[in-house]
Amino acid sequence: MVMTEQNKMRKKMANTIRFLAADMVQKANSGHPGAPMGLADIAVVLSEKLSHNPKNPKWLNRDRLVFSGGHGSALIYSLLHLWGYDLSLDDLKNFRQLDSKTPGHPEYGHTDGIEITTGPLGQGIANAIGFTMAEAYTKNQVNSEMCELIDHKVYCFCGDGDLQEGISYEACALAGHLGLKDMVLIYDNNAITIEGATSIAWSEDVEKRFEAQNWNVLKINGHCYDDIEKALDEIKSATKPTIIIANTIIGKGAGELEGTHHTHGAPLGDKIIAESKTKEGFNPDETFQIPEDVLLRFRCALENGELAEKEWIHRHKEAPLIEQNIALEKLLNPDFSSINFPDFSNDKEMATRDSNGKILNAIATAIPSFMGGSADLAPSNKTNLKDMGNFPKGRNLHFGIREHAMASITNGMALYGTTIPFNATFFVFSDYLKPAARIAALTGIQNFFVWTHDSIGVGEDGPTHEPIEHISQFRALPNFYVWRPADATENIEAWKTALTMDSSPHGFVLSRQKLKTLKPKRDFGDVSRECSTL
Amino acid sequence: MVMTEQNKMRKKMANTIRFLAADMVQKANSGHPGAPMGLADIAVVLSEKLSHNPKNPKWLNRDRLVFSGGHGSALIYSLLHLWGYDLSLDDLKNFRQLDSKTPGHPEYGHTDGIEITTGPLGQGIANAIGFTMAEAYTKNQVNSEMCELIDHKVYCFCGDGDLQEGISYEACALAGHLGLKDMVLIYDNNAITIEGATSIAWSEDVEKRFEAQNWNVLKINGHCYDDIEKALDEIKSATKPTIIIANTIIGKGAGELEGTHHTHGAPLGDKIIAESKTKEGFNPDETFQIPEDVLLRFRCALENGELAEKEWIHRHKEAPLIEQNIALEKLLNPDFSSINFPDFSNDKEMATRDSNGKILNAIATAIPSFMGGSADLAPSNKTNLKDMGNFPKGRNLHFGIREHAMASITNGMALYGTTIPFNATFFVFSDYLKPAARIAALTGIQNFFVWTHDSIGVGEDGPTHEPIEHISQFRALPNFYVWRPADATENIEAWKTALTMDSSPHGFVLSRQKLKTLKPKRDFGDVSRECSTL
Repeated sequence: MVMTEQNKMRKKMANTIRFLAADMVQKANSGHPGAPMGLADIAVVLSEKLSHNPKNPKWLNRDRLVFSGGHGSALIYSLLHLWGYDLSLDDLKNFRQLDSKTPGHPEYGHTDGIEITTGPLGQGIANAIGFTMAEAYTKNQVNSEMCELIDHKVYCFCGDGDLQEGISYEACALAGHLGLKDMVLIYDNNAITIEGATSIAWSEDVEKRFEAQNWNVLKINGHCYDDIEKALDEIKSATKPTIIIANTIIGKGAGELEGTHHTHGAPLGDKIIAESKTKEGFNPDETFQIPEDVLLRFRCALENGELAEKEWIHRHKEAPLIEQNIALEKLLNPDFSSINFPDFSNDKEMATRDSNGKILNAIATAIPSFMGGSADLAPSNKTNLKDMGNFPKGRNLHFGIREHAMASITNGMALYGTTIPFNATFFVFSDYLKPAARIAALTGIQNFFVWTHDSIGVGEDGPTHEPIEHISQFRALPNFYVWRPADATENIEAWKTALTMDSSPHGFVLSRQKLKTLKPKRDFGDVSRECSTL
Repeated sequence: MVMTEQNKMRKKMANTIRFLAADMVQKANSGHPGAPMGLADIAVVLSEKLSHNPKNPKWLNRDRLVFSGGHGSALIYSLLHLWGYDLSLDDLKNFRQLDSKTPGHPEYGHTDGIEITTGPLGQGIANAIGFTMAEAYTKNQVNSEMCELIDHKVYCFCGDGDLQEGISYEACALAGHLGLKDMVLIYDNNAITIEGATSIAWSEDVEKRFEAQNWNVLKINGHCYDDIEKALDEIKSATKPTIIIANTIIGKGAGELEGTHHTHGAPLGDKIIAESKTKEGFNPDETFQIPEDVLLRFRCALENGELAEKEWIHRHKEAPLIEQNIALEKLLNPDFSSINFPDFSNDKEMATRDSNGKILNAIATAIPSFMGGSADLAPSNKTNLKDMGNFPKGRNLHFGIREHAMASITNGMALYGTTIPFNATFFVFSDYLKPAARIAALTGIQNFFVWTHDSIGVGEDGPTHEPIEHISQFRALPNFYVWRPADATENIEAWKTALTMDSSPHGFVLSRQKLKTLKPKRDFGDVSRECSTL
C-alpha cells in the first residue's frame, strides 16, 4: 500500500520523536526509550487533535493529557518541546540531571505542561478520571444549551503496569459507573514488562474487562495512522468513557532491539541508534535532530492554541447568560471569608467527627466548588453534605469502597481548577490510599483527607480497625499537614488555616468518641501564621 | 413447590444460624447481622461439603475457609460453635467483648478455626488465593499419580466491598492467570452497602469481569438449596478458579428490615427478632436457641472430620512412594541450620540488594519451601532464584505489577504451612502494600518483605522513587521488624535472626548503591537474643 503524503509526514514526525527519546536516554545513560518509541505514532496523530495552548499551559478549557506511565517521560518532554512549551532543546539534553526541567519522572509545578506528577503506576489513570469528574461537575454548573463554556477531553496514556495495579480497576469502575464520556484512555499494549513478556503474569481479556465496567472499547494498530485517526475521531461522539487498546511494538524503530524488554529501561547504545537513524533517512552522526518541516508542523500548536483560547475567551465574554460567567467565577475564586463557621461555644462535648461534619457543611454552603465524599463510610465519617444532591449534579461523591482511587481522583480534582474536593474514610484505612497521599504531598496538592475513628476508641470493631502507627506515618511525610483537633473549636481553626495553605494536602484526624470542648471561645491567635513558620 | 425433607432441615439449620447471629449482635448492641443472615443458606450447604476436622483445626489437608468480609464474624463464630470447634455458647454470648474469643472481626491465632485475620476489605480474597497457591506448589512437590497427599479446596466468602477494592482485582487476575482450580470465591451479591444501594457507586458486570480474568462463573439464587448444592458439586471438576455469584437478600429473615441497609451494621431490635423467630417456629422468648436436631446435624462435622483426617493419615503413611513423604516432611520442617550462607569477607564493597540476592539463593538452595518474587522488579530487586524455575512447578513467583495482592498472597502462603514466601519491590512502593504489611504484623505472620532502592540513592528516577518517610512508617508499626543492614555481613545476620522469629513479618531495607563491607568477619554475637528483648 502506498503511503499518503500526510502519512509520510506523520512518519517523519514520529521518527523525530523516537530519535529524540533515544538520544535523551543515551546521553543521560539512563531512562526508558521503549515506550516513547512505541507510542510516537499515536502521539503524532494526537498532536493534530489536541486542543491546548503552549503559551498558556493553565488555560482552563484545554484538553488534559496525562502520562500514567511517568517513566515514559522522554516522550512527554519531546512533545512539550516540539509543541512550543517553555522547554528548550538544551532542557532535553539535560534529561534526568539534577535540577534540570526534565527529571526522570514528570513533575507537576516543575515543568510547564505537566498536568500531574506520575511514576508510581496506576495513579495517573485515577488522576485523569479526577480531571474528568471535575470537568463534569463544572459543565453542569456553567454550561447551558446556548453556550458551552467548558467542553474538552482528558487523554491518558497507560501501559500494562497501570492496568495491573488495582487502583486502575477501582477508578475505571467509577468512571464507567458515572459514564464520563470525556475520558479517553490510550492503552499501550506492547506485551512487554521489566521481567519479560507480560504473559508471565498477565493473561486477561482487556476488552472484556472494560466492557464489564461500562466503557467503550476501540482496538487499533498503534502504528497505523489511519487507524489512530479514526479512533480519535470516533470518541468525539462517545457517550461513555473510552479505552483505545493500541497494539504497539515497544522500542519501535530500535533495530534488533525492537519489541524486546531491553528497550524498556536502558539506553539502546550508539550503534543501534545510528543504524536506525540511517534506515529512516536521518543523519546517523547527529543527535537531537529536528527536521525543519517537522518542527513547523508540531509548532502549529502555538497558533492553533492561541486561536482556540481566544475563541474560548470570546465565547466566555459573550456568554449570553450572565449567570454562567458568575457561576464560573465563583468556582474559580472561592471566597473563604464568606464561610459562616458553626458556633460550638454552647456544646460542652462533641466528637470531632461530628464537629467536622458541621464544618464541612458550613464550607460547602458558602463555597460552590467545595465537594466530597467517603469510601462508603459517609454515615460514620459524618461527611454527608445536606441537601446538596449527588455528583455530578450535586456535591456528594459516592466513591464506593475504593480508598486508593478516591484519593487519586480527588488529587486530580484539586488540580483541575474549579473544584475543591475532600475525601474520607476511617483513619486505619488511610493505609489503602497512602500512595496517593504521598503524591499529593510531593506535588503540593491541596487535597483534604478526612479520617475519623482515630484511635483505639473505635469500639468493638477491634484491632483491624484501630489506627496505631498512622499518625506517625503521616507526620513523617514531608509537606503533609496532620491536624488532630482536641475539640470542636480547634477543629474550626484547623480548617480555617488549612484552607489558606494551598500548596499541601491536609489530613484531619478525628474522634468517634465525644471530646470535651476545652476552649469554647476562639482565642487561638493566628494559627496560620504559626503554621507558615513550620 | 413442595420442599423436600432435606431442604426443610436445611432451612431450620439456616434459621438457627440467622437467629444466633441476630441474638449475638443484639446482646452486644453492635455488629453486623445482615451478611450472616443473607449467607446462612449457603453456609448450611457448604457445611455438608466442607472437609475439615474441628478437633484439629491445623490438619494440613483441610479445606480452607476464609471470610473476606470479616464484619460478618457472627456467621463465622456461629458455624465454628455448631461444627464443634473449641468455641462455646458462652463465647457466642460474649460477642464483641474485650478479651472474648469472639471479637468484632475474626482474628487468626486468637480463635481456633479462623484461618486469617480479616476486616480491611479485599485482602481476604488475596489471602485465600495465597492458600491456593501454596497448595498448588505443594501438590507439585508431593503428589504423584499413584497418591495425592494434598487435595482440597479453598473457599472464600466475599461481598461487594471486597470486589470494589482494587486488591481483589489484582489477586483474581493472578489466580486466573495461574488457573488455580481449587480456588472458590462465593460472592454475596446483596446489592446493599453502608451508604445505601450498591447502585450508587457500582454498576459493573461481575460475570464479565471474572470471565475476562479466566475464571469459571456460576450464578445462583443464594437462598435455593438445590442451586447452591449444584454449584458446589460443579466446582469439583473445575479446571480454573471459580466464582459463585450468589444473589442474596441482606438480613434475610429479618421481617420488615430484610433487604435494607439497616441490617448491615446495627442490631435488629428485640421486636423484629421475636417476630421473625415466631414466624419460623422458633421460641420468640428464647435467645441463642439451637434445636437438638440442628446441633446433631452440624456436629456431624466432628465425626466426618476425624474420619477424613484418619483416612488422610493412612494415605500419608501408606504413600507408595517414600519420596512423597520425605518431600512433605522437608516442606513442613525447614532446617535453617543447613543453609550455607555466602562468605562476603573478600568483598570490599557490595550493594545490599546484591548481597541479599545471594542470601536468598543460599536459603532457597537449602530450604525447598522457600520461594518468592517481585512485583515485576526482579532484575532490580535481585530476587531471581537461579535455576529454580517458575511457580507453580518452580519457585520464582511473577506477581505482575500488583504490590498489594503480592503482599496479601504471601501472607496467605506463609500461614499455609508448607511454603515460606518472600516478596519484593522498591522501598517507595511499600506504600502500595502497607495494608497487607499491617495485617501481617497484627496477626504475627512470618512474611519477608524485600525492599531495595532504600533512599535518595535511587539515581535519576527522582522524588517519586525516593523513599523518605517509609523507614519511620514501618518502624512505627508494632510487631513489624525493620532490618537495614549496613553491609553484606550484617545482611546475613539479619536473615539468620529473622528466620528464627516466626511470629512477625520482617522488612529488609536494602541499598541500590554499593556499601563498604565494614566487618568482614561475623562477630556480632547472638543477634537473635538481642532481638528477643526488644
